[in-house]
Amino acid sequence: MAFSPALSRLIDAFRVLPGVGAKSAQRMAFHVLQSERAGGERLSSALAEALQHVQHCRRCRMFAESDYCDICSNPQRDASRVCIVESPADVMALEQNTDFRGHYFVLMGRLSPIDGVGPEELGLDVLRDRLQNGPVEELILAVGATVEGEATAQYIGDLAERYGANITRIAQGVPVGGELEYVDAGTLSQAFSGRRPL
Amino acid sequence: MAFSPALSRLIDAFRVLPGVGAKSAQRMAFHVLQSERAGGERLSSALAEALQHVQHCRRCRMFAESDYCDICSNPQRDASRVCIVESPADVMALEQNTDFRGHYFVLMGRLSPIDGVGPEELGLDVLRDRLQNGPVEELILAVGATVEGEATAQYIGDLAERYGANITRIAQGVPVGGELEYVDAGTLSQAFSGRRPL
Repeated sequence: MAFSPALSRLIDAFRVLPGVGAKSAQRMAFHVLQSERAGGERLSSALAEALQHVQHCRRCRMFAESDYCDICSNPQRDASRVCIVESPADVMALEQNTDFRGHYFVLMGRLSPIDGVGPEELGLDVLRDRLQNGPVEELILAVGATVEGEATAQYIGDLAERYGANITRIAQGVPVGGELEYVDAGTLSQAFSGRRPL
Repeated sequence: MAFSPALSRLIDAFRVLPGVGAKSAQRMAFHVLQSERAGGERLSSALAEALQHVQHCRRCRMFAESDYCDICSNPQRDASRVCIVESPADVMALEQNTDFRGHYFVLMGRLSPIDGVGPEELGLDVLRDRLQNGPVEELILAVGATVEGEATAQYIGDLAERYGANITRIAQGVPVGGELEYVDAGTLSQAFSGRRPL
């Protein structure tokens, strides 16, 4: 006794999504078939459409629907400043909350040899070409302060140094609104050693 | 600044899935586009196919790809015994773990007036027709021991009584392998009052 073939295939197909195991996949399939048929149709066609049209920007690896993304093809933006981020969501967050008007480079991950993610998977050859060809005045590392983020920052820092780029990294310290009492030891130590004149 | 149109639509479409909010939807879209393109194609077509072919069995409301499900259209099964369950997954679990050879009736939910789920949404009119027309010798309630499950059991019990069906309910008690010390008070009390001669 098993579910009907089309239903089994659907449950199986949902498992491709991150964080979705056997139980969640079943729940998703039942939910769509039971009470979200219109939404299911929409998801099916949105998936097909995105897979057909969305690719990586050739310059910065951001998701884009043409060869170059909106930022890279905007002549108003300063191509000599490049901000390195881990994910497309980080680009959105920086665009919404900073006045940075340069270019980005999206790693789509972080160095993690254990998971098979090396410099090539992060497109660092593309970044090297860019450092080699265009004058890059400032390379801003906006990667996370995790172990893999540190390794990634270290690697890219070494790379950029060879091409004489100016390297900066976004500040680590006490989060805005954070009370010292509740800040973890590593962050507090970083914040203290990174103190700046008022 | 926003994601490209096809990507935005995809992120939005993922939110139709149960338990998927803005962040998870974004993560799913990135994951599929970045590293699971084949899986994404598979999901897209599995969804379209299932939505086109999977419907409810006319007799028991189980998901099926024809008018009647495999169980209802199997002449070997005893139609005079009907087991009421909440979800298609429960049918699978009972089929795999019991020797029940009767029919099922799948509620696809449980009574919960607060969420707009009344007797009609559970297809209880179909069940009533069945009680009215065919001789139902035993109606087995295999719904959960939750508040909504209790309400559902009560409602169906009353309904079946009017048609003179024999009603049973699966036993509530200490789970197999469970130590009394760790069993909650309600379960222990149910198990004690439901004691049977050895």
